[in-house]
Amino acid sequence: MAEHTAPMSALSIKAESGGGSYPEPFLSRMGQGEWRRLGDAFGLTQFGVSLETLQPGAESALRHWHTLCDEFLYLLEGEIVLRMNAGETTLTPGMCVGFKAGVRDGHHFVNRSDRPAHYLVMGSRVPGDNAYYPDDDLLWIDREDGSFPAHKDGTPYPKK
Amino acid sequence: MAEHTAPMSALSIKAESGGGSYPEPFLSRMGQGEWRRLGDAFGLTQFGVSLETLQPGAESALRHWHTLCDEFLYLLEGEIVLRMNAGETTLTPGMCVGFKAGVRDGHHFVNRSDRPAHYLVMGSRVPGDNAYYPDDDLLWIDREDGSFPAHKDGTPYPKK
Repeated sequence: MAEHTAPMSALSIKAESGGGSYPEPFLSRMGQGEWRRLGDAFGLTQFGVSLETLQPGAESALRHWHTLCDEFLYLLEGEIVLRMNAGETTLTPGMCVGFKAGVRDGHHFVNRSDRPAHYLVMGSRVPGDNAYYPDDDLLWIDREDGSFPAHKDGTPYPKK
Repeated sequence: MAEHTAPMSALSIKAESGGGSYPEPFLSRMGQGEWRRLGDAFGLTQFGVSLETLQPGAESALRHWHTLCDEFLYLLEGEIVLRMNAGETTLTPGMCVGFKAGVRDGHHFVNRSDRPAHYLVMGSRVPGDNAYYPDDDLLWIDREDGSFPAHKDGTPYPKK
């Protein structure tokens, strides 16, 4: 059992960057983003909650939806554009949006402004979750031997 | 399955107030707080995420811990004091803290400042969760016939 950890400034938690764990050719399309795993810093396991920063031109993720995990975003500062099947919506500070697990409509956020955008994003962690990427030749599938990125035909991308 | 709901201003979501569902004599001790159920507004079920405001003198909750649910708080504006077994810590904007399920150390937040405080709080929703209140004659227990507040000896408080 994790010990209690004292409150801390979110900005004191180590930032990660580099576009995450997508395979190429996707990884290099992501632009400059960074994220701090706030929940993990306190030993939380049931959901992830991160403070993320998107620089101008960067994308939060490839457009995707999850089969089993609920997701939620709250914009702290800056401006980001949500892209879904029905089109685009611009978020300003204090706006939020949730994505129910299993709803077959991909989402992601892009920063088309000239300033960094900062948001909190959270998602549940459910074993067996798959992610689908309607615009790209990509699936993230959880199979007998673990969770990995694959082409839409199921062929795994090369391991990094 | 919930339909996708478009992004919205968190402040446009209906505020609830009145101290929540505690029995007396606890309810009237809570002071003036209000909360907006942001996750529920988008049909999310796996975790709750709320935007909460504590007026000066108000408390977020009675000091408690959960047996099965992880919790997390991020302070947006104002100043709140976290109270736990080891003592008190003041949080300022941009600070956060997480509480791992099952850690036997109660927590709550009080606003001792002269301004309202605003924070985001989230928690997983795990069936069978109990909450324990070390400072008060209160348990929140999930038994065969549902979840309800009880005295420490297990006797239910009167239904409201």
